[in-house]
Amino acid sequence: MAKVVSLKKRAKVNNAPVHADIKDPLQAEKGRGRIEWAGRTMPVLNQIRERFAKQKPLEGVRLAACLHVTAETANLVIALKEGGADVALCASNPLSTQDDVAASLVVDHAVSVFAIKGEDNDTYYRHIHEALNTRPQLTMDDGADVVGVLHNERTELLEHVIGGTEETTTGVVRLRAMAKEGVLKYPIIAVNDAKTKHLFDNRYGTGQSTIDGIIRATNRLLAGSVFVVAGYGWCGRGLAMRARGMGADVVVTEVDATTALEAVMDGFRVMPMSEACRMGDFFCTVTGNIDVIRQEHFEKMKDGAIVSNSGHFNVEIDLKTLHKLAKGRAVLREFVEEFTLKNGKRIIVLGEGRLINLASAEGHPSSVMDMSFANQALASEFMVKNHRKLEKKVYAVPEHLDQEIARLKLRAMGVKIDKLTPAQVKYLGSWQEGT
Amino acid sequence: MAKVVSLKKRAKVNNAPVHADIKDPLQAEKGRGRIEWAGRTMPVLNQIRERFAKQKPLEGVRLAACLHVTAETANLVIALKEGGADVALCASNPLSTQDDVAASLVVDHAVSVFAIKGEDNDTYYRHIHEALNTRPQLTMDDGADVVGVLHNERTELLEHVIGGTEETTTGVVRLRAMAKEGVLKYPIIAVNDAKTKHLFDNRYGTGQSTIDGIIRATNRLLAGSVFVVAGYGWCGRGLAMRARGMGADVVVTEVDATTALEAVMDGFRVMPMSEACRMGDFFCTVTGNIDVIRQEHFEKMKDGAIVSNSGHFNVEIDLKTLHKLAKGRAVLREFVEEFTLKNGKRIIVLGEGRLINLASAEGHPSSVMDMSFANQALASEFMVKNHRKLEKKVYAVPEHLDQEIARLKLRAMGVKIDKLTPAQVKYLGSWQEGT
Amino acid sequence: MAKVVSLKKRAKVNNAPVHADIKDPLQAEKGRGRIEWAGRTMPVLNQIRERFAKQKPLEGVRLAACLHVTAETANLVIALKEGGADVALCASNPLSTQDDVAASLVVDHAVSVFAIKGEDNDTYYRHIHEALNTRPQLTMDDGADVVGVLHNERTELLEHVIGGTEETTTGVVRLRAMAKEGVLKYPIIAVNDAKTKHLFDNRYGTGQSTIDGIIRATNRLLAGSVFVVAGYGWCGRGLAMRARGMGADVVVTEVDATTALEAVMDGFRVMPMSEACRMGDFFCTVTGNIDVIRQEHFEKMKDGAIVSNSGHFNVEIDLKTLHKLAKGRAVLREFVEEFTLKNGKRIIVLGEGRLINLASAEGHPSSVMDMSFANQALASEFMVKNHRKLEKKVYAVPEHLDQEIARLKLRAMGVKIDKLTPAQVKYLGSWQEGT
Amino acid sequence: MAKVVSLKKRAKVNNAPVHADIKDPLQAEKGRGRIEWAGRTMPVLNQIRERFAKQKPLEGVRLAACLHVTAETANLVIALKEGGADVALCASNPLSTQDDVAASLVVDHAVSVFAIKGEDNDTYYRHIHEALNTRPQLTMDDGADVVGVLHNERTELLEHVIGGTEETTTGVVRLRAMAKEGVLKYPIIAVNDAKTKHLFDNRYGTGQSTIDGIIRATNRLLAGSVFVVAGYGWCGRGLAMRARGMGADVVVTEVDATTALEAVMDGFRVMPMSEACRMGDFFCTVTGNIDVIRQEHFEKMKDGAIVSNSGHFNVEIDLKTLHKLAKGRAVLREFVEEFTLKNGKRIIVLGEGRLINLASAEGHPSSVMDMSFANQALASEFMVKNHRKLEKKVYAVPEHLDQEIARLKLRAMGVKIDKLTPAQVKYLGSWQEGT
Repeated sequence: MAKVVSLKKRAKVNNAPVHADIKDPLQAEKGRGRIEWAGRTMPVLNQIRERFAKQKPLEGVRLAACLHVTAETANLVIALKEGGADVALCASNPLSTQDDVAASLVVDHAVSVFAIKGEDNDTYYRHIHEALNTRPQLTMDDGADVVGVLHNERTELLEHVIGGTEETTTGVVRLRAMAKEGVLKYPIIAVNDAKTKHLFDNRYGTGQSTIDGIIRATNRLLAGSVFVVAGYGWCGRGLAMRARGMGADVVVTEVDATTALEAVMDGFRVMPMSEACRMGDFFCTVTGNIDVIRQEHFEKMKDGAIVSNSGHFNVEIDLKTLHKLAKGRAVLREFVEEFTLKNGKRIIVLGEGRLINLASAEGHPSSVMDMSFANQALASEFMVKNHRKLEKKVYAVPEHLDQEIARLKLRAMGVKIDKLTPAQVKYLGSWQEGT
Repeated sequence: MAKVVSLKKRAKVNNAPVHADIKDPLQAEKGRGRIEWAGRTMPVLNQIRERFAKQKPLEGVRLAACLHVTAETANLVIALKEGGADVALCASNPLSTQDDVAASLVVDHAVSVFAIKGEDNDTYYRHIHEALNTRPQLTMDDGADVVGVLHNERTELLEHVIGGTEETTTGVVRLRAMAKEGVLKYPIIAVNDAKTKHLFDNRYGTGQSTIDGIIRATNRLLAGSVFVVAGYGWCGRGLAMRARGMGADVVVTEVDATTALEAVMDGFRVMPMSEACRMGDFFCTVTGNIDVIRQEHFEKMKDGAIVSNSGHFNVEIDLKTLHKLAKGRAVLREFVEEFTLKNGKRIIVLGEGRLINLASAEGHPSSVMDMSFANQALASEFMVKNHRKLEKKVYAVPEHLDQEIARLKLRAMGVKIDKLTPAQVKYLGSWQEGT
Repeated sequence: MAKVVSLKKRAKVNNAPVHADIKDPLQAEKGRGRIEWAGRTMPVLNQIRERFAKQKPLEGVRLAACLHVTAETANLVIALKEGGADVALCASNPLSTQDDVAASLVVDHAVSVFAIKGEDNDTYYRHIHEALNTRPQLTMDDGADVVGVLHNERTELLEHVIGGTEETTTGVVRLRAMAKEGVLKYPIIAVNDAKTKHLFDNRYGTGQSTIDGIIRATNRLLAGSVFVVAGYGWCGRGLAMRARGMGADVVVTEVDATTALEAVMDGFRVMPMSEACRMGDFFCTVTGNIDVIRQEHFEKMKDGAIVSNSGHFNVEIDLKTLHKLAKGRAVLREFVEEFTLKNGKRIIVLGEGRLINLASAEGHPSSVMDMSFANQALASEFMVKNHRKLEKKVYAVPEHLDQEIARLKLRAMGVKIDKLTPAQVKYLGSWQEGT
Repeated sequence: MAKVVSLKKRAKVNNAPVHADIKDPLQAEKGRGRIEWAGRTMPVLNQIRERFAKQKPLEGVRLAACLHVTAETANLVIALKEGGADVALCASNPLSTQDDVAASLVVDHAVSVFAIKGEDNDTYYRHIHEALNTRPQLTMDDGADVVGVLHNERTELLEHVIGGTEETTTGVVRLRAMAKEGVLKYPIIAVNDAKTKHLFDNRYGTGQSTIDGIIRATNRLLAGSVFVVAGYGWCGRGLAMRARGMGADVVVTEVDATTALEAVMDGFRVMPMSEACRMGDFFCTVTGNIDVIRQEHFEKMKDGAIVSNSGHFNVEIDLKTLHKLAKGRAVLREFVEEFTLKNGKRIIVLGEGRLINLASAEGHPSSVMDMSFANQALASEFMVKNHRKLEKKVYAVPEHLDQEIARLKLRAMGVKIDKLTPAQVKYLGSWQEGT
């Protein structure tokens, strides 16, 4: 696959050319403002960046990051650079790139970015290869695509890699499957499993930004509507909570019995998608699985039902089949596409079934990404220091790093909490204290 | 004031020129899609439009409407036109015009529209005068600006006017003051006071769209923030409910004791703005009054506090004084302006203090505007039929119209309710039935 | 109807016998504690009582009160007595009397109380007659029973009466029907219509205490259950809000279209009782009407459905028919009666269909009754002063009294609110201020 | 310690005497109704009981259970007996025994019960010894008191014991401390750690029943009050959720940074107890630790503050010191005791600082105990079958048992969920499927 970086996109920083493939370097100024605005609510990452700038823990490390190219990611990349890393960045989703942010990273920070909003599938994978061409020692993934390409197509590069990190539930599931089969070739830290990541980013981040994405795309009223959330994992419960908070009557679908019971006890109606599909005004999938909404469901939906996805990959809605079922298609608004079925009913799909919070909105607010990316930064540092001791497995973020992030965040928010008294510490550790 | 309508904006429908002043007629196609999309969730107004098309109750009536020029308003204007009215439309807020919708109204429907998003104050008032130049018989106001200009500057036109309608709480307060002073020159129907208007539009419409506007402008996380709502009227309680639904810790300020008690019992913290100003991350005014946030409050705010307004006029935040207090200003993102005070603290103002749900979002979702504008349409018809019997006062929407709108809406939503049995009707009317 | 007051219940205060019919004067001490405990969260009534004690505005007035004989009512009665009134008190519901409170009122305060918890229907009406035998000048009603008996059976006493007050929605509906027919013989103040009454007592009081009553009776988990609320008036929305707050999936039934729409927009499912009856785990009626749950509904209910009422009268559930339908009955716990239908399904009725918050719990918490009874006290005083100017109609509580109560309550709770600045007052009164 | 079982309490079943120490065997009938009522919403335990009756997996096993002696526990004990076990039951809290339930267990089921509501500390421990005198092979604990006494005082009995189970967070913490020190003498299954236990019982059970206990004790309005929840573990978040659901303004205190952040993001105010103590109207501790509310806090509380505990032991509120600080004490209502400090302020303590949901209410609703006790029953069976393979450690409930309980519960509730399609199963297990 030939590398084709147009000259006009080859940005120069201090007169040195930067390898990059972005939409338009002239958008750098707008991107700069956006990065700065996001950085204001990323106090934990900022503190890490300041330390990194002094200590240079990543000095000379080549790092390929495949992340949503947003203003928050830019703040992470800048912190990694200040820590001494050489970063190549490609997109983890064809629709999520903020072109102005990409421009600023190239122009202002000499980062090699390969990402253009709306790029087709070929370009998407070409960009991953571009990033891999830098022969990374660390990989940073959001959905395990870099790991996938490395292990499937670019095995010659594996010898350089000392370790990696993974951001999402979806990616961690894939990586665990690889580790179980014994095919994973280097250690990975599951950033997603840090409490300060999944309890916040997945829940409060996905919750708000998915609602935001759906409202921006449709401007429809949620109050009084029936809103079906497929999946009641951390993302799903964040979304269900917010949809209810906007006045919707929320229905949950699940495959796990215990999780389904929790949804029932939280006051939601729980039913199979085969029933929920008849009553929803809005549907949103957040399961990490394929074909959660499929032919049998489309055919029973109400006229005008609005279908979207906030799970990592655009596979949760079976759009291929919907395309076949439809006798007509029309784009009604940006990110709003209508499919008319043979039964005359119209189904509205938002953002081509891709992550709606990144397609039609701006992704997670920066204050939750602050913690997620603080985990990324600290996990990278940890990997550089400890990779020799690690096996080719999936590791958790060390608990003391997780705790430290929570403490820094609370302090930045001005929230104080209690400290255990010595007597309380003793009591908790003792089993001889009577009733 | 000379009328200056540029030729290129003088749209032609069926080769007849239409008086208009809009941004760009070429945006009509995009506007058409938007109007159609909004219309899909306006079933009550659609039914009225169909009847109007047959019965022509407004045949030949000249109507000047001063409303937010949005896709929902377009659906109202189209219904009025089908009812036989000649409509001139100007904006009720300089920032709320959707230029593409304006274009479609002119190009596709031959409506005289005088509105350009972001117009300056002079243009804003010039446009009101343009609309008045059509010598309206009915006025339709959203904030009583047309009534104000008519009674202050264009008294020569009052003889043509048979009546008017008013959409907002703010306008109704003004009109009641005028009626009380005996200066109101024609009868007005307070559409705002219809239950199917203020209980829905003000509460659920303002609630969702204000949150939407603030998130679009800032992409900040509401969960875990302190969100101060100034005013606990219908708009305020809608906003407070939604801010809490997004995970914020909501503080309410009020001037009315009973209303304040309700806020307390609803679980909100209630305090004067002089205290709330110290703790808010977000502030939003919805009071209908002036200077609700003013110098004494700015000076005590936290660094980075975000201030916005969702009340009708841009007078609720004392921006004049803020401009004076600030030693520096910067636009950080669209609709996001930062003022740096002499104490070094930064205050962020959204959308220049104008209605944030219209400035940075798309206003109320169409399904609530459906009922508000159904009231407008029916109130206009009622005024044409009954104006001779009415005094120069502010009237409520007749209750049977209000009830009918609720019934049509429920039916369109597929919601069935109970009917009183004959025995129940008898019981309610009787006082002799025993315990 | 012969008056039979047993000697042992003829309490003596300062050696003077008190006419009374209560369960047991020896319970006075327990009642005293209860009255004192309630009085602690009734600061508004306490302030009124202190003023009454000085000013004696009710000096020598004979007053017959037919109210739930609870600790909160006792605080009202004591305030009225300190204002100079001679009070006779009977129960407004056979199940709601707190016998210990009744004892303390008789023994400690020499009030003539005619009320015994669980009294039969005959005794209930006999007690109303006992209270009327005092030839009252003021009546104080909770459900209009005294007014009903006076106008139907004791018309000879009407000449003494100068006015009355009414506490409930149900009673006000009856009284308005009487006034409309022209049969009401003296003016009544509808205390229920005061904002500081129905917005608080009906909503927050009924909401919490009904949930309390249902849980005390059943000890069942509400989380995850389907809870059907019949009626979405102030009581109904209070109850729906609290049932949701306990984790239930709440279904609302209504007869009014606008109110039903509000329930939909608040996120509740709305449907006719004929559908809701199939899915409810819990049912509670709060409509003020008869036969809201009736044969056609019982027959479709799930096995084990729990049915209760929190409306004023025990007529909302058609128990007569249920008795006929049942092939078996059993009392399972106190206030829990099971009816086995011929289809084998079991229906559980709580508290014999009487106000469940008074049957199995202690009625509204005192802090909401504080405002309701402050209205009663001030309305009585107003009636004594103004009865000559009033017609035989139903009157609202004068707004300045209503406002004053809200202000006193806020002050007692330590909540401060904003005051309008002079500029704001001027702005609100003016219609000439520009945009 | 001499065993003193009075003859009159030595119940006879089928003419065989039963060792027991209970309040009054004549209350058996009332207890029987209560047990039956609870059993109706315990479908999972009922199914296990039916299987146990056939398979007798616990045949001849001696089991000492130290649990709250409630109607739900009775259903568990009956299931264990039907499984073949000989059960001795003592109370895990001096205030939580339902005497009528104890009576029915003795009289109707020949269970050796040693528990009397309100027993003093000596009797409490004597009863544990009575239960241990049966030389149990299995122990079933709720707070690890039996384990504690066994390991401290009755080590001679340890040789008989093959294993045990533990119900609570508090107990599990103690047992882990013992296992860590190497002093635990037999394997224990931490029932608390089953998802179908702590996610439901601790959250929804404690949530509702604690609110219930506080309202029954006080009849105070929660709406509009400040409610301080100490601890945001599963119990704490259940309580915080319900207190908010009743309209309170909820403040959370915590010692763990990540947990505290979750509380903030859930919209609660988080602060140290040293600040919260100034503003609370209600306080409830659910931490599992000692002295959470102590002298420094009492002294800053508002007059009339209401303090309660819903953590396992009555050590969370430092009552010893409060007794010393108080210049006066009075019991105002059942379970309501007032302490007047030297500064004149009054602090109200509910239920002597013991588990308020058991002291003044009836403990967790049976439908959550259903799952907790299904875990107990299955864990006992598992221990009997597998104890030889286990080490002297704390074990989790095997996941397949946990899952099975959730499935049975959903089925009993009539809730259906989705099943993974074969394609979905394959996708989840595969890492080679592309984006």
